[in-house]
Amino acid sequence: MSTDLKTCNEDLVNEWSAAARKYISEHALSGGEKERYDGIKVKPLYTPLDLKGIPYLKTLPGFAPFLRGVIPTMYASKPWTIRQYAGFSTAIESNNFFKAALKGGQQGISVAFDLATHRGYDSDNPRVAGDVGKAGVAIDTVEDMKLLFNGIDLKNISVSMTMNGAVLPILASFIVAAQEQGLSLYDIRGTIQNDILKEFLVRNTYIYPPEPSMRVVRDILSYTSANMPKFNSISISGYHMHEAGASVAMELAFTIADGIEYLELCKTQNIDIDLLGTRISFFFAAGMDFYLEVAKLRAARVLWYEIMGEFGARTDKSRAMRVHTQTSGVSLTVQDPLNNIIRTTIEAMSAVFGGTQSLHTNSFDEAIGLPTDESSRIARNTQLILQEETGIPDVIDPWAGSYLMESLTQELIEKAKEIISEVRNHGGMTAAVASGWARTEIDKCAAHRQADIDTGRKTLVGVNKYQTNSDSSTPYREVCSRYVLAAQIDSLAQIKLRRNTTSVNQALLNLREAAKEPDANLLSLTIDAMRARATVGEVSETLASIFGRHEATPNLAEGVYASSHPQNADWQNIKQQISSFQSRHNRPPHVLMTKLGQDGHDRGMRMLSAAFSDLGFHITVMPLFKTPEEVAHFSKLENVDAIGVSSLAGGHKRLIQDLFINLKLIEMHPIVFLGGIIPHADHDELLSAGVSGIYTPGSTVAACALDIIQKILHRFTKVKLKSQFIKCPSIPPMNIPL
Amino acid sequence: MSTDLKTCNEDLVNEWSAAARKYISEHALSGGEKERYDGIKVKPLYTPLDLKGIPYLKTLPGFAPFLRGVIPTMYASKPWTIRQYAGFSTAIESNNFFKAALKGGQQGISVAFDLATHRGYDSDNPRVAGDVGKAGVAIDTVEDMKLLFNGIDLKNISVSMTMNGAVLPILASFIVAAQEQGLSLYDIRGTIQNDILKEFLVRNTYIYPPEPSMRVVRDILSYTSANMPKFNSISISGYHMHEAGASVAMELAFTIADGIEYLELCKTQNIDIDLLGTRISFFFAAGMDFYLEVAKLRAARVLWYEIMGEFGARTDKSRAMRVHTQTSGVSLTVQDPLNNIIRTTIEAMSAVFGGTQSLHTNSFDEAIGLPTDESSRIARNTQLILQEETGIPDVIDPWAGSYLMESLTQELIEKAKEIISEVRNHGGMTAAVASGWARTEIDKCAAHRQADIDTGRKTLVGVNKYQTNSDSSTPYREVCSRYVLAAQIDSLAQIKLRRNTTSVNQALLNLREAAKEPDANLLSLTIDAMRARATVGEVSETLASIFGRHEATPNLAEGVYASSHPQNADWQNIKQQISSFQSRHNRPPHVLMTKLGQDGHDRGMRMLSAAFSDLGFHITVMPLFKTPEEVAHFSKLENVDAIGVSSLAGGHKRLIQDLFINLKLIEMHPIVFLGGIIPHADHDELLSAGVSGIYTPGSTVAACALDIIQKILHRFTKVKLKSQFIKCPSIPPMNIPL
Repeated sequence: MSTDLKTCNEDLVNEWSAAARKYISEHALSGGEKERYDGIKVKPLYTPLDLKGIPYLKTLPGFAPFLRGVIPTMYASKPWTIRQYAGFSTAIESNNFFKAALKGGQQGISVAFDLATHRGYDSDNPRVAGDVGKAGVAIDTVEDMKLLFNGIDLKNISVSMTMNGAVLPILASFIVAAQEQGLSLYDIRGTIQNDILKEFLVRNTYIYPPEPSMRVVRDILSYTSANMPKFNSISISGYHMHEAGASVAMELAFTIADGIEYLELCKTQNIDIDLLGTRISFFFAAGMDFYLEVAKLRAARVLWYEIMGEFGARTDKSRAMRVHTQTSGVSLTVQDPLNNIIRTTIEAMSAVFGGTQSLHTNSFDEAIGLPTDESSRIARNTQLILQEETGIPDVIDPWAGSYLMESLTQELIEKAKEIISEVRNHGGMTAAVASGWARTEIDKCAAHRQADIDTGRKTLVGVNKYQTNSDSSTPYREVCSRYVLAAQIDSLAQIKLRRNTTSVNQALLNLREAAKEPDANLLSLTIDAMRARATVGEVSETLASIFGRHEATPNLAEGVYASSHPQNADWQNIKQQISSFQSRHNRPPHVLMTKLGQDGHDRGMRMLSAAFSDLGFHITVMPLFKTPEEVAHFSKLENVDAIGVSSLAGGHKRLIQDLFINLKLIEMHPIVFLGGIIPHADHDELLSAGVSGIYTPGSTVAACALDIIQKILHRFTKVKLKSQFIKCPSIPPMNIPL
Repeated sequence: MSTDLKTCNEDLVNEWSAAARKYISEHALSGGEKERYDGIKVKPLYTPLDLKGIPYLKTLPGFAPFLRGVIPTMYASKPWTIRQYAGFSTAIESNNFFKAALKGGQQGISVAFDLATHRGYDSDNPRVAGDVGKAGVAIDTVEDMKLLFNGIDLKNISVSMTMNGAVLPILASFIVAAQEQGLSLYDIRGTIQNDILKEFLVRNTYIYPPEPSMRVVRDILSYTSANMPKFNSISISGYHMHEAGASVAMELAFTIADGIEYLELCKTQNIDIDLLGTRISFFFAAGMDFYLEVAKLRAARVLWYEIMGEFGARTDKSRAMRVHTQTSGVSLTVQDPLNNIIRTTIEAMSAVFGGTQSLHTNSFDEAIGLPTDESSRIARNTQLILQEETGIPDVIDPWAGSYLMESLTQELIEKAKEIISEVRNHGGMTAAVASGWARTEIDKCAAHRQADIDTGRKTLVGVNKYQTNSDSSTPYREVCSRYVLAAQIDSLAQIKLRRNTTSVNQALLNLREAAKEPDANLLSLTIDAMRARATVGEVSETLASIFGRHEATPNLAEGVYASSHPQNADWQNIKQQISSFQSRHNRPPHVLMTKLGQDGHDRGMRMLSAAFSDLGFHITVMPLFKTPEEVAHFSKLENVDAIGVSSLAGGHKRLIQDLFINLKLIEMHPIVFLGGIIPHADHDELLSAGVSGIYTPGSTVAACALDIIQKILHRFTKVKLKSQFIKCPSIPPMNIPL
């Protein structure tokens, strides 16, 4: 090194800043231009000076606080587990899919259940006719669970189950199925999500009210940590917060805050914290904000290490945070779907650099419909290529030491601590969820983000910039719901015929009694019931008869979208048309916004509802999980001008048909529009059925609003407008784990 | 930070090593398991201890030695230029493609010329009938060049031209076309490759022998640095070394060594080194070895900074290395082509992290045929998404400080210095190319790599592992060569009619005289000739009449493939069948390996020739650039059993047809097999024409060899075997810049 080179000190950084000011503003220099919704700033330059005062810098992987990874050698000895989330139709069809995926290089299974199962309904329940087998596999009894894992060695292939609502009968069925494969409780591996708090916060596949729901979590933690030492009894999930629109720091903080609530819950139960600690796992999203996503996983490990210490954990092992990651669904686009392969690759790399233990990569067609065999293979290949062609897994925590990455990790740790302390000021996460504060915080981020996309401040390639005219004819997987329904109903009937009804009834009775006793363990009794071939629906109804079913009151983050949106010509035009309606009718146009069936993915509906409300519509938001009949009757009661239906779970054809039948029966004729994951191939059928507008991920709130107000106005002037297909970006894709 | 945490010192690293040994071997711990062909090792763990003694660590971007980038703010003020390499058919068709690409977000143009143009032949020359407009655009005169940039503002859109052989008439045409658009010499921006050394080393689109070729380079450097201050007068290229199989350190070192030769060349010419330095640019590949690829660009800047200092450069600006990068063609596969989107994304990220000034991302279908509009768009979108959706460009040199990246950068600097010193021991790069030493070093890497793929030690997803049965029907772009030929011949004839023949002849005469005078500047005289509407062919032939045309003697890296390949059953089987031929005929089976036409991409042919020779075949390698007629006659002279044709430039249909006609005329009937980029849609036609086997990128040397020896044996037993299509991975895809 020549001795006259300038090395980094404050003088040189000042000299650099002077040189940089010729190219960029002072605001950009400080990172201000790139400030995230949560206040995190990313600067253009990081130097050794940025490392001053950062603790943990010189730690090693496998050693506390696990900043650099939870085991000493990380992927150098064994890469992350390729665990793709999948499930559809019947257990037999999903089983075939799993086996093919394992043959193609997948290393673990992650089961997607259908919405009927999530919400504790058997397939023969008329409430769920549109949902059976659609966005996941239909499971009614242990027999289905056995078919699902037929020929798959549960001793060696670990299974993750995304289940929270009907967690008791599903986990119990899995245990019985494994036992009937010859495994002992001791040997059962895998993970159950069992994270009910984030259901109340964002995902909505709860069944019972918060208090008994938390008791169910507790009973599972308690039973599994005592009896199933290889099984992860909870997977605390930030993924769904990301999908709902949370910023990186918010996802991180709220997830850790959920973890704190579960630890508090266990405090009362004499569960050994060091035993429990080794059975807790986490689940994060990997979004497109590359550096922050890497830093998030590094920061999360340090935060959890500290929290577990606060709760009295003594062993390092119990304080080491293990993580599953999934690439972001909300980052995927319908337009130019091969772009999603690029996005998913970048996101997967951030998860790998962050040190995830397992990873799901989304298929490129998930914003269009259910993934095909081909798109699933390419998604899996993304991980195989990263593992076997790039050399990336050879080095443990490769970003360690990076001025940027170490600074950003520390910044995220500090920001998350601030947010966690805010949560504590709101009485902890359970209270912050109950009051709606936490959801409003997330909704605010989502509204800002949507306004940024709608106004072009944030680029989505192929959506609001660099659009292509080439028509996409991406194939997607269609589940024949009549076939699945018929198969499930038939097999349920046969099981009910064959089973010993007395044992079933006795087991359900025992469960019912136990539900009244706060100290009884519900999992052990559910295992008895499922072993006797009780159904998921029977167990859920038995518990609901004591606990009740939870119904949430929707509240919206009004004003945020409007505040981020310029009052441009489009915006003024819509407002003017709404005023013209108002002056003609002495009331604003009234729109009922609703989901149908068991689909609880309400980010898109909430965001649009709030933004429409900002524009001057009178918006009523229907509570979740209503049948088409219930929605039709409510629309008559409120005498609405239009109904907006949001669908992300594939049940739209059947559910929309039922909605129109019910509207006709009561002689209601509002305008009906539809948003969400609606494959292009279905559009003609839906438009013929009477839908006035279909808004799939792609264009702006303003475009949707304008279409709706124009159609409402024309409805009154009796001029029938041509039905129209408008693209709208506001709805997250299908692959939000159900 | 709790005070009891262990921080990194030698004791802790020892403790870590003890813990790590439970998971991995001592060999793996030291990085030995991951040793690259050039001796570079990547260890599993890097810590602050690895930074000891590394110079340059605390430097900043925009400051010497430019480790962290050549301008202070890098992408934070302006991201890299999206410069996609493209060109095909006529100037008009390529012009339309360029305009659409610029509209779709491309920011600079990079022109692919057809092989006829590269080798200095006009389109109406019968030698090049199979090559016109195939792998690039056909340019014969200034008129074509004007059409190529019609409606494209050359003052604002920078143009890069990959041209080395016919560099004088092409650069001259570009200059005249720009002037006729109204630009002054002073305002002309862009880059000419003008790097002839790597043509002799690996790429083979030279025309004249080395000495006059180097003089041409010198004349261009001298003229442009005096008259065209905004134009990059050379782009020293490692890309083609990567494509030929060079390891990362070898690509880096040989490229820098080429640069040293050019600097030496200019020393004699009184060219101001500080002026020259600002006009030199570089061109590297981004392959799949992620960390090394990032480190390579960081290391290259430091190396060049030092070299320029040795040559007496005084200003920082002249010592700052500017780089264009292209993702790897050789990493792409025919099988499961969407996997290539994943690979290209990863490679693009390494180039961006390395701080490239501009980038070409390959299309996913380039191992199949010429990219379509759709695949080109997705390739471009890869860069747009990285620029606008990920936040990656926000931070300058984000890996700075990373223990891994800083160590690896330094290791590459040192390894490259070792190799450069070896080159110097061989008398410098010109001598090392002339002796064949440098090419053999590259060929050895290529043979090792191929053996690793063939034996499964190196994974190619979808090729030698995780294969899919789903048949790919990827579309590709077909250039109608008859149309292009007819259009070019017609337009040439018209230009020749219209031009002032006396002026043309006088200009060519002046050029011819100047060629004899070592100190005359050929570029300035070529500009006069092209302005008078001389053709590319006329200028090239005029100079060839003085300089001669270069013909290379092929030599092979024999023994390397065999030494890396296990002597397994397949291997023994082939050797045995070859011995059985030998004992029957008292000679080994004789195969003539050849390219046809102007296609000089000989990596696949060389690699297979050496490996076949190792197996016991008698291999004769045909010199490059022979016509089908010449190959047919030579095959008769040598009385060969088989002819192996390698084609990567799209001319195979026409050239194979001509080969069979010529063989028939002289009553030769050897077995003919074909390897390279042969679109599946062409196979039937080729097999019907008489080709016995087609080997596209995909399976092993052994599979090809077995097929050939069996067919040779059966030829003698007069049993006609069914023609067969075997996949073979040994041939690099099309998109090697021509």
